[in-house]
Amino acid sequence: MAELRSRLWAAQAGPLTVDSGEMCRFAMYLGPPIKLSALVTEPSNSIIHQSYDAQEREEPLNGDGFGVAWYVPELRDEPAVFKSISPAWNNANLLNLAPVTRSHCLLAHVRAASPGLAVAQVNCHPFVRERFAFMHNGSVGGFARLRRRLRERLSDLAYDAIAGSTDSEHVLALLSDRWLEALEPDPLERAALALRETIELLEHLRAELDIEEPSYLNLAITDGAAAMVCRYVSPGPDPAHSLYYARGALVVEDGKSRIDAPKSDGPAVVVASEPLGDRSRWEAVPRNHLVLIDDQRRVNLREI
Amino acid sequence: MAELRSRLWAAQAGPLTVDSGEMCRFAMYLGPPIKLSALVTEPSNSIIHQSYDAQEREEPLNGDGFGVAWYVPELRDEPAVFKSISPAWNNANLLNLAPVTRSHCLLAHVRAASPGLAVAQVNCHPFVRERFAFMHNGSVGGFARLRRRLRERLSDLAYDAIAGSTDSEHVLALLSDRWLEALEPDPLERAALALRETIELLEHLRAELDIEEPSYLNLAITDGAAAMVCRYVSPGPDPAHSLYYARGALVVEDGKSRIDAPKSDGPAVVVASEPLGDRSRWEAVPRNHLVLIDDQRRVNLREI
Amino acid sequence: MAELRSRLWAAQAGPLTVDSGEMCRFAMYLGPPIKLSALVTEPSNSIIHQSYDAQEREEPLNGDGFGVAWYVPELRDEPAVFKSISPAWNNANLLNLAPVTRSHCLLAHVRAASPGLAVAQVNCHPFVRERFAFMHNGSVGGFARLRRRLRERLSDLAYDAIAGSTDSEHVLALLSDRWLEALEPDPLERAALALRETIELLEHLRAELDIEEPSYLNLAITDGAAAMVCRYVSPGPDPAHSLYYARGALVVEDGKSRIDAPKSDGPAVVVASEPLGDRSRWEAVPRNHLVLIDDQRRVNLREI
Amino acid sequence: MAELRSRLWAAQAGPLTVDSGEMCRFAMYLGPPIKLSALVTEPSNSIIHQSYDAQEREEPLNGDGFGVAWYVPELRDEPAVFKSISPAWNNANLLNLAPVTRSHCLLAHVRAASPGLAVAQVNCHPFVRERFAFMHNGSVGGFARLRRRLRERLSDLAYDAIAGSTDSEHVLALLSDRWLEALEPDPLERAALALRETIELLEHLRAELDIEEPSYLNLAITDGAAAMVCRYVSPGPDPAHSLYYARGALVVEDGKSRIDAPKSDGPAVVVASEPLGDRSRWEAVPRNHLVLIDDQRRVNLREI
Repeated sequence: MAELRSRLWAAQAGPLTVDSGEMCRFAMYLGPPIKLSALVTEPSNSIIHQSYDAQEREEPLNGDGFGVAWYVPELRDEPAVFKSISPAWNNANLLNLAPVTRSHCLLAHVRAASPGLAVAQVNCHPFVRERFAFMHNGSVGGFARLRRRLRERLSDLAYDAIAGSTDSEHVLALLSDRWLEALEPDPLERAALALRETIELLEHLRAELDIEEPSYLNLAITDGAAAMVCRYVSPGPDPAHSLYYARGALVVEDGKSRIDAPKSDGPAVVVASEPLGDRSRWEAVPRNHLVLIDDQRRVNLREI
Repeated sequence: MAELRSRLWAAQAGPLTVDSGEMCRFAMYLGPPIKLSALVTEPSNSIIHQSYDAQEREEPLNGDGFGVAWYVPELRDEPAVFKSISPAWNNANLLNLAPVTRSHCLLAHVRAASPGLAVAQVNCHPFVRERFAFMHNGSVGGFARLRRRLRERLSDLAYDAIAGSTDSEHVLALLSDRWLEALEPDPLERAALALRETIELLEHLRAELDIEEPSYLNLAITDGAAAMVCRYVSPGPDPAHSLYYARGALVVEDGKSRIDAPKSDGPAVVVASEPLGDRSRWEAVPRNHLVLIDDQRRVNLREI
Repeated sequence: MAELRSRLWAAQAGPLTVDSGEMCRFAMYLGPPIKLSALVTEPSNSIIHQSYDAQEREEPLNGDGFGVAWYVPELRDEPAVFKSISPAWNNANLLNLAPVTRSHCLLAHVRAASPGLAVAQVNCHPFVRERFAFMHNGSVGGFARLRRRLRERLSDLAYDAIAGSTDSEHVLALLSDRWLEALEPDPLERAALALRETIELLEHLRAELDIEEPSYLNLAITDGAAAMVCRYVSPGPDPAHSLYYARGALVVEDGKSRIDAPKSDGPAVVVASEPLGDRSRWEAVPRNHLVLIDDQRRVNLREI
Repeated sequence: MAELRSRLWAAQAGPLTVDSGEMCRFAMYLGPPIKLSALVTEPSNSIIHQSYDAQEREEPLNGDGFGVAWYVPELRDEPAVFKSISPAWNNANLLNLAPVTRSHCLLAHVRAASPGLAVAQVNCHPFVRERFAFMHNGSVGGFARLRRRLRERLSDLAYDAIAGSTDSEHVLALLSDRWLEALEPDPLERAALALRETIELLEHLRAELDIEEPSYLNLAITDGAAAMVCRYVSPGPDPAHSLYYARGALVVEDGKSRIDAPKSDGPAVVVASEPLGDRSRWEAVPRNHLVLIDDQRRVNLREI
């Protein structure tokens, strides 16, 4: 009967309810204000260029939507967010917004859904919850199987906030519940604690259901002032997805971006799936490590 | 704390997770093969015209997507479905498909999301599950509040099949579970039974949560041969949404459709939120009644 | 043969090459900086609300795209522009951008293509040329017939800048040619001269081809500092499309906008197809008049 | 002054008025009826798969829209056409239409606009004029410069039929004018004559303007019964874009397509930018040759 049922339902072509952020690229900037164009549209080695020519992936294609978020604290605590299911490299609105948008905290994400999966604006990163912006590159191993159990663990608040069908938004839901429940007063420590508990829960569910596929959790979350970044893969032989960070000044010259030594207006911290320009100033985030960036842009690495 | 939390989450602009099919219009045709254009694009009084000039509604606007489905049994048991979030009246693909698409069973739906709600292709009707096509005009009263409880009642199969965020798709999930569990062998009787149980469960959840808003459940479901249609509103003073049916031949002449007496190729049955043309051959479905249409296109009305 | 040919080509369903800005609504703001949301998304009587409930039109529907433009002079001379073919009232990106976008010069346009006409982002207003933003409500009478002759009159520069198929963009092309050729040094006088010549040329072409349909040319053009607005209809019995202006402060309170007396930061000038709020502070632009707004926001009316 | 002007206009970000079909892939099928899915969605080596993994191109990405066309002669002389600017590999409507669409004549095209160029549905191939469907892979050398002169040569009919901004649609306009003027009674010979004159005119314009970039004109045009295909590059050292044809039966097995020997229902002719499956049954169209396919699916190669 179970088989009959799945045969019965399996026939529908089109959007499945499970979606993954596996084949994505992201970048986050915190520092002296820069234009969005310096991060996403001007440099030929930007995240957008990576969207059709990523170097460190087998499938060099991220044409299934993108999103950018940025903070304008004098006007609103919540970040602005702009998302689209059209490919980033041909979005006229993005090309027009990027040069007139300036911020000290910017996020950008390009997304590649697997062929056959649903492409919808609600599934594009970054996801915003109040003053937080969040994005994910990777996938929750066996998400289709553990999704329902995962949802049962959520508070009504986090449950109701899920608007799309990505595993990523479910990870954010777990994370926000843990964050709201944690007693730790320091915000970054609280985030680190919440993330650790989130990963533990996900691994617990994987174990419970004998799921073999590893989870890949390259995450970035910020409130516009501080940020936490994570590079994680489940225990086993599989390598984590690539993730790098750099500290200095993000400079764009002759259509290329690079990291220079910090300038007088203070250092910036940039995190990206692949180095933006010359690798010499970029460091790989070690496997299963957190990067904690405080509101002075001091960087702290820590094993998860 | 709960208040703090909801304040916390409420700030995000954009797509909410709750969506409703309240302000919609639909039409279904079963009978001798006709072109899709005869139902949706050719007549000035078609469902598409209703999409920007509905007569029996206060808000005459259905510009938030549409969908059509049709059966080609010689090629596939599952219906074909074409949906878009762009307004129906300007969709070049629909205008091109409609005149070359011919079927004995056609469905069409135009949708108006409330301002501020998510518009996404996965939320457009008709919804397809295996060989069934389903559409809904109305809303589940208090859906945002009862959604989680409703989902807890679903089988994994029905739960996992939900791809979007509409109340409509959740009603379909309940209905399909009831249908799979029912022992009644006659398919139409089985559908009627499943629908009655679905409505009972929805009313039970409404009562449990003291929800005052009524549910409006104008539904149509078909497997391409037989069909069940329903006009329902929760007990109380509120009138049900409008729903009509006609039996005869659907004729398009001078850019207008009308129902004539059946022709030699047998009668057609047409169901629509508003009469397509001259009202004289249309009958209102009585409040809280089912219309059962068997594979000989015999029509049977029954109180729910 | 000519008949055969037009029969031959007429059959293609879908986008026609002629498009019109006839059924549209627009608003422009010049004054002390305000948020884009104050003009377009917050007030229930905004241009977006007008997009589905315009009061002074027979067809109360503007669901075929919209556009907004605004100036950020400290970052770029050219205005930013954001356009979409989806209805304004459900565009999550617009809802997210509007509250974090602040400018002293903002434009907004909602568009209703006639059923059957092409809806494409390149056809959405405002149109941008270098530092100018331009929008149009109305139509060029007999545009399909005079289009080719009109194009023959254009400079290569203006010809090549036309990206879409609207009559509006062709009016802008004429206007920019006249403006580049005019010798008048004062920019506003130069714009007025160029507009007068543009209208003369359009009327000349109409006369040459015995076109009976009048042209409706409600236009707004600005460089971010000064602006010219025009309300025009061809000679004859037909009334011009509605157009209003107000001088004072644009205030949003309890979800409604209104015009108050100017504040200490100086007066704003607002132009709109319909008054935004209480009509008492709005004045109708007289038929076939220009409104010249200088960079001190002094308003000058002049017959065309 | 000219320089000032181009500087003046050059600043607008976003859609340019010139667009090219250079980086595209197409396929056409004529033969015993097959499902659209056999050509485009089922096989892993289909045109859709080529859309993100083309083998014979340096840029393996065709994510800027696609189009399919097919003939249903019993319902309409004009082909049906379905186009979208979203990537083909994630279009739920295409996945749903393909298995229920069956025809003896099918066309499919995937398109890659250059970064920065306009992506719009009107610019997607195939283009339809009355009963003809047309598609193009390549580009007109120096199109931006010769466009205006080219348009001056067009009849009003062909001029007015151009809805978008691609060089491809302009080539079709020239071709249709030549075809309507040609006196040759045999349709295929007439098409060949019209094409030769079209190419001559394009080369004449290139020479007149000293344009160095070659034109690449891989074209396919059909009326649903017969077809003409062309592989062309301007004189010089540059190779033509790839183009292949095969005669036999198109078979899909285990998710792969291949060409088998013709079956009892007669041979099919398939033309594609890259072989669909095992190369042994495919032949390269020689440089600067026509392929004429008559309504008996006899194939005739001829130098241009």
